[in-house]
Amino acid sequence: MGKTKLRVIPLGGLGEIGKNMMVFEFGDDMIIVDAGLMFPEEEMLGIDLVIPDITYVRERIDKLRGIIITHGHEDHIGALPFILPELQVPVYSSRLTNGLIRVKLKENKALDGVNLNIVQAGDEVHLGAFRVEFFRVCHSIPDALGLAIHTPVGLVIHSGDFKFDHTPVNGPPTDFAKLAEFGQRGVLLLLADSTYVDTPGYTESEQVVGDALRRLMMEAPGRVIVATFASLISRVQQVIDAAYVLDRRVCIVGRSMVDTVQMAMEMGYLTPPEGVLMRVDELGRLPPEQIVIVTTGSQGEPTSALARMANRDHRQIRIQPGDTVIMSATPIPGNEQLVNRTIDNLFKEGANVFYGRSSGVHVHGHASQEELKMLFSLLRPQYFMPIHGEYRHLALHARLAQRMGITPERISVSANGHVHEFSPTAGRMVGKVAAGYVFVDGLGVGDIGHVVLRDRQLLSRDGIFVVIVAMDKQTGQIVGRPDIVSRGFVYGRDSEQLFDMARDLVVETMDGGSEHILELSLVNRNVKDALSKFLYDQTKRRPMVLPVVMEV
Amino acid sequence: MGKTKLRVIPLGGLGEIGKNMMVFEFGDDMIIVDAGLMFPEEEMLGIDLVIPDITYVRERIDKLRGIIITHGHEDHIGALPFILPELQVPVYSSRLTNGLIRVKLKENKALDGVNLNIVQAGDEVHLGAFRVEFFRVCHSIPDALGLAIHTPVGLVIHSGDFKFDHTPVNGPPTDFAKLAEFGQRGVLLLLADSTYVDTPGYTESEQVVGDALRRLMMEAPGRVIVATFASLISRVQQVIDAAYVLDRRVCIVGRSMVDTVQMAMEMGYLTPPEGVLMRVDELGRLPPEQIVIVTTGSQGEPTSALARMANRDHRQIRIQPGDTVIMSATPIPGNEQLVNRTIDNLFKEGANVFYGRSSGVHVHGHASQEELKMLFSLLRPQYFMPIHGEYRHLALHARLAQRMGITPERISVSANGHVHEFSPTAGRMVGKVAAGYVFVDGLGVGDIGHVVLRDRQLLSRDGIFVVIVAMDKQTGQIVGRPDIVSRGFVYGRDSEQLFDMARDLVVETMDGGSEHILELSLVNRNVKDALSKFLYDQTKRRPMVLPVVMEV
Repeated sequence: MGKTKLRVIPLGGLGEIGKNMMVFEFGDDMIIVDAGLMFPEEEMLGIDLVIPDITYVRERIDKLRGIIITHGHEDHIGALPFILPELQVPVYSSRLTNGLIRVKLKENKALDGVNLNIVQAGDEVHLGAFRVEFFRVCHSIPDALGLAIHTPVGLVIHSGDFKFDHTPVNGPPTDFAKLAEFGQRGVLLLLADSTYVDTPGYTESEQVVGDALRRLMMEAPGRVIVATFASLISRVQQVIDAAYVLDRRVCIVGRSMVDTVQMAMEMGYLTPPEGVLMRVDELGRLPPEQIVIVTTGSQGEPTSALARMANRDHRQIRIQPGDTVIMSATPIPGNEQLVNRTIDNLFKEGANVFYGRSSGVHVHGHASQEELKMLFSLLRPQYFMPIHGEYRHLALHARLAQRMGITPERISVSANGHVHEFSPTAGRMVGKVAAGYVFVDGLGVGDIGHVVLRDRQLLSRDGIFVVIVAMDKQTGQIVGRPDIVSRGFVYGRDSEQLFDMARDLVVETMDGGSEHILELSLVNRNVKDALSKFLYDQTKRRPMVLPVVMEV
Repeated sequence: MGKTKLRVIPLGGLGEIGKNMMVFEFGDDMIIVDAGLMFPEEEMLGIDLVIPDITYVRERIDKLRGIIITHGHEDHIGALPFILPELQVPVYSSRLTNGLIRVKLKENKALDGVNLNIVQAGDEVHLGAFRVEFFRVCHSIPDALGLAIHTPVGLVIHSGDFKFDHTPVNGPPTDFAKLAEFGQRGVLLLLADSTYVDTPGYTESEQVVGDALRRLMMEAPGRVIVATFASLISRVQQVIDAAYVLDRRVCIVGRSMVDTVQMAMEMGYLTPPEGVLMRVDELGRLPPEQIVIVTTGSQGEPTSALARMANRDHRQIRIQPGDTVIMSATPIPGNEQLVNRTIDNLFKEGANVFYGRSSGVHVHGHASQEELKMLFSLLRPQYFMPIHGEYRHLALHARLAQRMGITPERISVSANGHVHEFSPTAGRMVGKVAAGYVFVDGLGVGDIGHVVLRDRQLLSRDGIFVVIVAMDKQTGQIVGRPDIVSRGFVYGRDSEQLFDMARDLVVETMDGGSEHILELSLVNRNVKDALSKFLYDQTKRRPMVLPVVMEV
């Protein structure tokens, strides 16, 4: 690598939604931006979490000067408990983000000896060859930051997750003047959030949600229950404000919601008027039309407070006819069925539920097409790399950049693990490094690979069929009848005949060989093939067939 | 049951999307409306299809006079191959629906000896106490019918799946005059489609799609590939029309698309201008900008033509830069990830893809809120039962009916298996009958129940851990070392130590008992408990643990 080139290496967040991580390297210095997790996709059966593969960083650990976190969402901070104990470098983030990181590290018993630093918009930190300047952006969590990374070859802007909300709920809007100033100074490379690039127009302001919440709360005949993300602190503030105006009191329910609200109040990010909050044991003292409940469960998570209420499984709160439930969130892709089931159950209990786009009770936190164009207009970067999105988002963002005048050869639609080098006058991809998935399953981090996952997929489809044969060590003859253990294939009680035929087939197959069978693996293979074919012919199902020959 | 009461029993389609089936019974006569299938939900692992439980019908088979099918979609005809051979009654449907039923029965080798009858809007059939009159409705398949079921206690209207499209593509719009006439005569009970009741306003006309297709085709620099449902024949006609106007030729690709197009042409539902269609082997003769390909795969089905093209796995067609792909369909809930993956792969191959609501290339086939209100205005029914939808849709439809002046006690938000009785002056629920899921998996219809499914779910999460112990019949002592077979739990090669500790534990547990162990099931239980706890402590995973003790 040239000593005068900047290396940019995405280790996560490209071609996927989640586990965001970017590496910047110049000479002997390296920084990481964001360290997120991803929730497992449908076919990652049994996996708890997915984090980035940091092999590239691990092999250059001496260069690593620090980790910068843009905001406090799981897909930006969630990998820290798994990588920070090993990397042992300072972390830089805003005050709220820092609080959320602490909670996360503590939950995972990884808080000891870490070096966490608080920064704010306008601050700068020097990390080797890099000078990182922070600027304010709006997102669906307060205290989100964008980054101006001053490097020896030029200025790199990393948007973080952002939108341009002119009337945000918490704090001032995105700092346009600052962005224009960067544009004046000259931007070498822009990395920008692609999550909602397929949406035309502008993302609506958080204020729209405030209006809708107030209207629904005014019309609600009884209690109002609002479900949203615990991290969406501005939304909680909006609910509290509406309740206060309408003489309702607010009860916070659900562990992560209670924890986050408490932390946000202590840190000053949430400011409920005196006396508006109430404890859950006070609910019985007020008439329903004076009650608002704010809770987790907007994603239908089976153990969340809202799902428990919907299932009559919550210790303190039961849904009653006349309740109004507001789902103030969009289902994350993959969660649709869980969310729908929760809504169905709420209706069954007699609640009226407001959900979906047309109800106006949620706006997301990412820039739409016109905002992304605005970002290009302000920054006028020489090079562009779309980040944070599945491949279609990156591709569409590249098309949008072209319409904004950036020529195709200056746009990198990249992928995790692709290494890009930039000089003041050139930028290109120079190679690839490891950047796959690291699966977290129980205590195991990275021990589960494709073999185990493929087996889980096979098992999930048609179950398993284990046949056990005892074989005399001396004679090579079968001892007794083969034993069969099967799960997830057919209902055992109805299948005695099928199992018996299978036993016969096994005996037949093994007898067909030589008198003394020396090659056990061959026996296994023959029995497996014969059984698989037999079972498929009989049932048109393909259980995993496992022959076990025990020498006795 | 009163001899003067009408019984209405939903056996499917309520509280779910799919496997629609309604039973109407009066005295000694019974009819079925629709016989659909449902695609398995996420947790129905390995299941191919789900069909209604017809136990109630089976037990009264002598009363059954016929089956009426409203239109040719899978969720209305798909159960016929599995139930018709047993029920052996006449089926009544429109001409196109009849054609699709024939295809379906033939595929399943169930066409022999069936009695299929063609009807059209305006026709009447007499089935015992029932006189069924058919009227035209618009839906996302041609030749859809609504039903006016004249019964001794009054007129029942069954909407089928419908929308009010004033400018449909195939044939005339929904017959408003007929609906008004029914309203004049007096409607006892309305059963109406609830699928899109959560959508405000009107469903857009198919014409909107025609305009969008023409515009995109005009702007496309190369080939245009349109993916849609094979049954959406009107959409295929729109694509052909646009191509013809713009001097492009059309190639139909994908087995089910080719079959349906051919049948629709033979029956006159699809009328391509002379010379516009071309064979796939002619593709090479034309420049890209004169080519349109119509294909299956709009749901991302891995074996569909579009998914194969996206994966470079199609025998004849490869995506090339400059291709424009139009996803002219909405992902069915549950298919989102497959659809997104296909779109990502198409972009990777260099295509530009138009998808999603904002692209304007698809409208669905169901009435939105204002259309549903219109239906109430025209029919002014005494009683109302929302059908075709998950619970939230039924509940919202009930609220809408209330706003249209129907009092709550005359609205039945029902469920599959609930039995309702209606007289000219009263309607109420009187009981429940069996109406669950019947799973089709391979050759098995109904043999898979909750036990097998639960096992598949367990297996899918943390795999299986089988431990086999040979035990001397005489002494009750263990012979040799226990054998372990595990799949989907940990990666075997890295786990020799864990397996060895598990073997020791098994030996220890079994030795801990009496010298001669008589109670094998107790041994099994002890070994299972000890192993499960050990493996959880070591890994925080819970594989299915199966001890097998072989007496030798």
